[in-house]
Amino acid sequence: MTKSSTTVRQRIVAGAADMMSRRGLNATSIRETAKHARAPLGSTYHYFPEGKQQLVTEAVRYTGEWTAASLRRELEAGPVAGLGAFLALWRRIVVDSGFRAGCPVLAVSVEEPPTDEPPAALLAAADVFTEWENLLAGSLREHGVEPRKAAQLATLVVAAVEGTVAMCRAKRSPQPLDDTAEQLRDLILAAITD
Amino acid sequence: MTKSSTTVRQRIVAGAADMMSRRGLNATSIRETAKHARAPLGSTYHYFPEGKQQLVTEAVRYTGEWTAASLRRELEAGPVAGLGAFLALWRRIVVDSGFRAGCPVLAVSVEEPPTDEPPAALLAAADVFTEWENLLAGSLREHGVEPRKAAQLATLVVAAVEGTVAMCRAKRSPQPLDDTAEQLRDLILAAITD
Repeated sequence: MTKSSTTVRQRIVAGAADMMSRRGLNATSIRETAKHARAPLGSTYHYFPEGKQQLVTEAVRYTGEWTAASLRRELEAGPVAGLGAFLALWRRIVVDSGFRAGCPVLAVSVEEPPTDEPPAALLAAADVFTEWENLLAGSLREHGVEPRKAAQLATLVVAAVEGTVAMCRAKRSPQPLDDTAEQLRDLILAAITD
Repeated sequence: MTKSSTTVRQRIVAGAADMMSRRGLNATSIRETAKHARAPLGSTYHYFPEGKQQLVTEAVRYTGEWTAASLRRELEAGPVAGLGAFLALWRRIVVDSGFRAGCPVLAVSVEEPPTDEPPAALLAAADVFTEWENLLAGSLREHGVEPRKAAQLATLVVAAVEGTVAMCRAKRSPQPLDDTAEQLRDLILAAITD
């Protein structure tokens, strides 16, 4: 793939992630994504021959990867720094969008799949949550938290951040995230100094 | 309103709440809700003359009220009992639906409003979150937690529950809720015995 086609493809995936984070999975269409990413409609069919499910699955993975990269980098300074970066990243998305955007991984998780067979995007969403939890739990363990508690705290952090992002959108205020941030920081500090 | 018309109306509102909790706001239509609630289509227009926005707003308030009623009742035995009931209620919805249903209040919160003016349903969602937080915070204060910490812990509980419900749906497992439950219980126990 040439440099420029990689860029167009990435722009479409990033655009789909942004659109899903705003409107939800159902309201995200290939046509709207092309418009949103300022890409010709034909190019979306070229890059994503399997259609919407392929595109939204890649958008979930893309969100998972750039968030995990940021988390991995910041966790080098310890779990409190990692938590701070994770919270700051979602705060920026919510606030900069005027409380109109949130998390595309959550968006995929809260819409009923059309059949009993879980679609690829939902499986990808589960993997993304697990990856974020594993990164946080690993860092907690490295700082002396016993494995079971580390895993549970990591799940609590991911869940609380996902939940507060939704609450911030409803309340059109960063307050829920800021309040949650303070409690989670205290909790992690207590766990690693136990 | 006669007893029977109240019942039909309530069945439609409850049906809309269930449908929103499964498919999201966008995919919930008056027509589908009527079918889902086994009510004649005409009756939905009769009971909800302002259309979908009126119906979904009432569905959000309905979810808020029955959850608040359960929370209020269980909090009489203290914040740990209240938390347990709140978690059990959402666990039942997620597990009994085969991980296909979640929270209709969150569903409304994570879809971008069509205009800058927040729609009635989004305002109702913000009020519902605030009411749940206030009930939990009030109980924590009554059990000796200082006001600022009580408010922050209450927000964390609501956020964590909303987030884990979404994670349970993605992972098709109650594990995230059960892990979060254990951490939240420990946290509340520590706060009230400080």
